Amino acid sequence: MTNHLIIGMSKEQIPTPALVLDIDIFEANLSRMADFFTGPVKLRPHIKTHKCPMIAHLQMRAGAIGITCAKLSEAEVMAEQGIVDILIANQVAGYGKPERLAALACRADVKVAVDNQNNIDDLDRAACAYGSRIGVVIEVNVGNDRCGTRSMEQTLDLAKYIVAKKGLIFKGLMGYEGHCVFTAVRGERKAECLSANKILVDTAQMLRDNGLIVEIVSAGGTGTFDMSGIYSGITEIEAGSYIFMDACYSGVMGNEVFRPALWVLSTVISKPAPGLALIDAGMKSLTHEFGLPKPLLSGAELKGLSEEHGRLELLPEADHLKVGDLVAIWPSHGCTTVNLHDRYCVVKDNRLVAVWEIACRGKSQ
Amino acid sequence: MTNHLIIGMSKEQIPTPALVLDIDIFEANLSRMADFFTGPVKLRPHIKTHKCPMIAHLQMRAGAIGITCAKLSEAEVMAEQGIVDILIANQVAGYGKPERLAALACRADVKVAVDNQNNIDDLDRAACAYGSRIGVVIEVNVGNDRCGTRSMEQTLDLAKYIVAKKGLIFKGLMGYEGHCVFTAVRGERKAECLSANKILVDTAQMLRDNGLIVEIVSAGGTGTFDMSGIYSGITEIEAGSYIFMDACYSGVMGNEVFRPALWVLSTVISKPAPGLALIDAGMKSLTHEFGLPKPLLSGAELKGLSEEHGRLELLPEADHLKVGDLVAIWPSHGCTTVNLHDRYCVVKDNRLVAVWEIACRGKSQ
Repeated sequence: MTNHLIIGMSKEQIPTPALVLDIDIFEANLSRMADFFTGPVKLRPHIKTHKCPMIAHLQMRAGAIGITCAKLSEAEVMAEQGIVDILIANQVAGYGKPERLAALACRADVKVAVDNQNNIDDLDRAACAYGSRIGVVIEVNVGNDRCGTRSMEQTLDLAKYIVAKKGLIFKGLMGYEGHCVFTAVRGERKAECLSANKILVDTAQMLRDNGLIVEIVSAGGTGTFDMSGIYSGITEIEAGSYIFMDACYSGVMGNEVFRPALWVLSTVISKPAPGLALIDAGMKSLTHEFGLPKPLLSGAELKGLSEEHGRLELLPEADHLKVGDLVAIWPSHGCTTVNLHDRYCVVKDNRLVAVWEIACRGKSQ
Repeated sequence: MTNHLIIGMSKEQIPTPALVLDIDIFEANLSRMADFFTGPVKLRPHIKTHKCPMIAHLQMRAGAIGITCAKLSEAEVMAEQGIVDILIANQVAGYGKPERLAALACRADVKVAVDNQNNIDDLDRAACAYGSRIGVVIEVNVGNDRCGTRSMEQTLDLAKYIVAKKGLIFKGLMGYEGHCVFTAVRGERKAECLSANKILVDTAQMLRDNGLIVEIVSAGGTGTFDMSGIYSGITEIEAGSYIFMDACYSGVMGNEVFRPALWVLSTVISKPAPGLALIDAGMKSLTHEFGLPKPLLSGAELKGLSEEHGRLELLPEADHLKVGDLVAIWPSHGCTTVNLHDRYCVVKDNRLVAVWEIACRGKSQ
């Protein structure tokens, strides 16, 4: 089916709801993050945010050392598109998955997070069967209390266990400080982040003291990139959201460094009463786990989402809205919003200049 | 890319997270609803729930008179797949949309909801340009307070306005009682529903008293199918969720009539501490606007979702879970969960018996 998009069309002609990327702001965000990572710590951006090979290639061109993925199926897509230095920052487990990972490792420099001995056995067995070697990093719980080892002893035991496996290469550690990336007060965020960084770096040192080689010490999100990114002993940062700056991250960090580049363009489909307009973007185009998204229109507030409707309540200054009018909506959570769309409508000076496929959309397997 | 699915494989071999449809329960739900609609009121199921041409065809075979869609792009996909009697139960507005609808009306019997005079002008202009006639129903606000006319006078004015348009065919009314489909106490739900039905049917009668022909009077959701579905003057029902029965609707209606047929199969990827397991299904595979989904495992509760993780807290009876184990998750809201997936893994007796593409996934334009 056609997507009704033609390069050169005006923004007003793009069928809505549409995921619109402002290329100038996006490129500025890309450059600003690249400029930060000129020291010993490197950037390995998380592609879960954009799920788009074109954007991954632009990040690599801007100096990224590779990419971070959440899932095996994302890594498979990215490898097929020519991105071959990949950290899968989650555990890969389940029927057939170690085999797929081992097969991918024949063609890409792929590293995966582990925190479990049986999982390590499965990965090793698959790699030996496929004649590849899978890089592994141990996920360390640094306070996020999700996956990851719970003690230095456990980490050391797992590291020794990995080193003895012929199909695996022990690469180091990762620990995501997800519990503090959204802490609103910068001083508090920094204190929490440094505690998390310390756990990770101290663990790496302990492993080295035990004779292990620790090449990768991976941490960091967009909310902590300039904290973890200068912490001695951290080697690479997994930030992803910086390229788009959703409303949630902007609420935490402000818009001085990175600016909002991603919008969902919507159309008013009903103006049934004073002070009320309904737009054609609902929960199937916008997510709201980090609060309701924000319309880019003074005097308008998004007060609710149903599946295919957004409910805009309007002060008198915005009550001029009429059926057919466009309203740009600022996503509150870019990563999950992107996963609802098939492509970016890339816009410059109000013109469609490119269409980038979100090839990893739905790639959660 | 391959989807790693082979007909005949066991459920345990399906890559997770996977949207799994139990075909026996699904077919029982299909039959039960069809059995209800043997009287004067007909079923026009809403395909926003499943977004799948194969399921739409099965609903037609079971006696549905056509389908209801939320969006033009869903209708385009369904028409291309041979489903040609379509009600788009929302307003279609915005650049290029009336023209697409008019073009579709050349090949399909398409009806669309309206509540605005300028929108009616746009649809008429497009239909005249394309040499087609678009069926229109006026959306009446029956208490949902979303789109729709706010008074009988407004409805009458719009109906007369439509009748005078050469490119349009006035078909009747629709009014969705979305404000009460989830009312937990059946008696209260029924009272609210009958009030909504009365507004709609009284409005239809008023139009007839004014000499207008009202063929369609469309209402009803899964929570009210057996209330609106026997209300004299209602002609068709738009229920959709009955085929899957998500946890939200089951909480309202019980599981006596329709039973849960839809699951997200997940795998445990980490078991980092007693009482805690992480599964590979998060917000990119499951939605939670109607509450967190429920694991099909006694003693396990889903306590949180991040993008690609689900956090299962386990009582001692469920603490046997280990990395690699499968856990089926019952969606709380089927319609939005389906929109995150590309296909149904259709299962019978624990075997994959079919793979049905969700061709309308992401079709919100």
